[in-house]
Amino acid sequence: MHENLIINFTPTGMIPTKKMTPHVPIHVQEIVEDVLEASELGITMVHIHARDPISGEPTYKREIYGKIIEGIRKHAPHLVLCVSLSGRNINELDLRSDPLLLEGSLKPDLGSLTLSSLNFNKTASVNSPKMVQDLAAIMKERGIVPELEAFDIGMINYSKYLEKKKLIEPPYYFNLLLGNIACAQADLLHTGLMIRDLPDDSLFSLAGIGYEQLKMNSLAIASGAGVRVGLEDNIWFDAKRTKLATNMELLSRIHIIANANERAIMKPEEFRSKMKLKPGNGEYGRK
Amino acid sequence: MHENLIINFTPTGMIPTKKMTPHVPIHVQEIVEDVLEASELGITMVHIHARDPISGEPTYKREIYGKIIEGIRKHAPHLVLCVSLSGRNINELDLRSDPLLLEGSLKPDLGSLTLSSLNFNKTASVNSPKMVQDLAAIMKERGIVPELEAFDIGMINYSKYLEKKKLIEPPYYFNLLLGNIACAQADLLHTGLMIRDLPDDSLFSLAGIGYEQLKMNSLAIASGAGVRVGLEDNIWFDAKRTKLATNMELLSRIHIIANANERAIMKPEEFRSKMKLKPGNGEYGRK
Repeated sequence: MHENLIINFTPTGMIPTKKMTPHVPIHVQEIVEDVLEASELGITMVHIHARDPISGEPTYKREIYGKIIEGIRKHAPHLVLCVSLSGRNINELDLRSDPLLLEGSLKPDLGSLTLSSLNFNKTASVNSPKMVQDLAAIMKERGIVPELEAFDIGMINYSKYLEKKKLIEPPYYFNLLLGNIACAQADLLHTGLMIRDLPDDSLFSLAGIGYEQLKMNSLAIASGAGVRVGLEDNIWFDAKRTKLATNMELLSRIHIIANANERAIMKPEEFRSKMKLKPGNGEYGRK
Repeated sequence: MHENLIINFTPTGMIPTKKMTPHVPIHVQEIVEDVLEASELGITMVHIHARDPISGEPTYKREIYGKIIEGIRKHAPHLVLCVSLSGRNINELDLRSDPLLLEGSLKPDLGSLTLSSLNFNKTASVNSPKMVQDLAAIMKERGIVPELEAFDIGMINYSKYLEKKKLIEPPYYFNLLLGNIACAQADLLHTGLMIRDLPDDSLFSLAGIGYEQLKMNSLAIASGAGVRVGLEDNIWFDAKRTKLATNMELLSRIHIIANANERAIMKPEEFRSKMKLKPGNGEYGRK
């Protein structure tokens, strides 16, 4: 029997704008509302990207992350929360690590850690070895767990190097993101090999870029993995791109497939226990 | 029966210094001598990195590439020559593409094209989508064939995108480089999957970083692929690192293994014919 299904909800991301889809939550209150609605339906964790309230552009600012976290935890204090430390549009350590400095009831449980440099469709995403190691060190020191993000096979190898250097420690949580143009594809062998290579004591979710999201999520449900789902990776509901999705529609479809596959959603409490996270009721991060 | 063995000779690279090994050829005359000696033993092609004559640091300057090419072609006019367009220490298009501007008898047959950004051990190597596409476009316009360099599975996918955009055209030549810390490892499944994913009509060589060079070269000889070999990727002769290698020792070992495996070395003329390159006797680049 498969374990319960991790749902890692990614409502916003760096790319979608209101012009691309009116359904993407950008403002603090919109993000909080989407997350709380998702939480009522059933999710395990949230991968949060903050946006500047005026420009709508991605922001690293901890004040905005703090407001989102505050809004979510007021009603869903157990939900596992991960802040993005993306370097897609900034590349200074003090900016990228800013959300890690939140304290007390605003402290994130996890922070994202992309394990190498890579190319997206139009831009390079630079995560130098030093940046990856420095972010890991700050998280370790602050008891925040890295959400290890791997876009290709070799990035998993790098996590083993970080383990050897004692910059990360098990249990691990990985997002395996398939279908980016210059990275591993949404292919059974690419995916299977990444899963084979994971360190012992790893939980993981499968994500797909664009319409590959459904394929990878469905494959994850079938094969025992978790899913990463939301408008961050995919704004369309259907393959033909006739209908813009809402976060709730994407999530509801996951619930339908999970139900039919006899997979119950993993509650945040179970994830916390497996990942050695604090209980999430006033206490956050790793024990 | 396997086809003849491509030997892609990489005598210098970006990293080895005289301090690391006295055997690495740095000066124009040293590089030319190593290449000519290799050519007499039997190689197909050369992957050239130029160094500044004073500092010994890598240089993009076409004058120095031109002198190396002139020295080689004086005695081995058919040898297939590839210039490095590496972005490890520079990242401006006009600098990286400088060696592509060599003309006439100094024109390179190939130029290296790393297909995405990646992390090496200590540094990020940034090859943005625009840089990759711009370098490919210049090579296409000048009739210089890209030496497509893939360090992980997804980079091969990106070559298919370049093909769709008509920035590259078959027949292709790939170096598959295994064993870099944040990329695909010298593992049978990683390697096999990269080979499976190659576009139709591709020749390719396997390279390994450090001592993985021998493993990947030997695997290549056994399985029908070509080899990339030389001090660029590996300065030691043995696994225990007791003996610094010379280029000629590394090459001689390849000849021994190739002989025992009944694989003849592919002559430059055969490679030129397969890759639709000009004959290499006063005429260089693609037909």
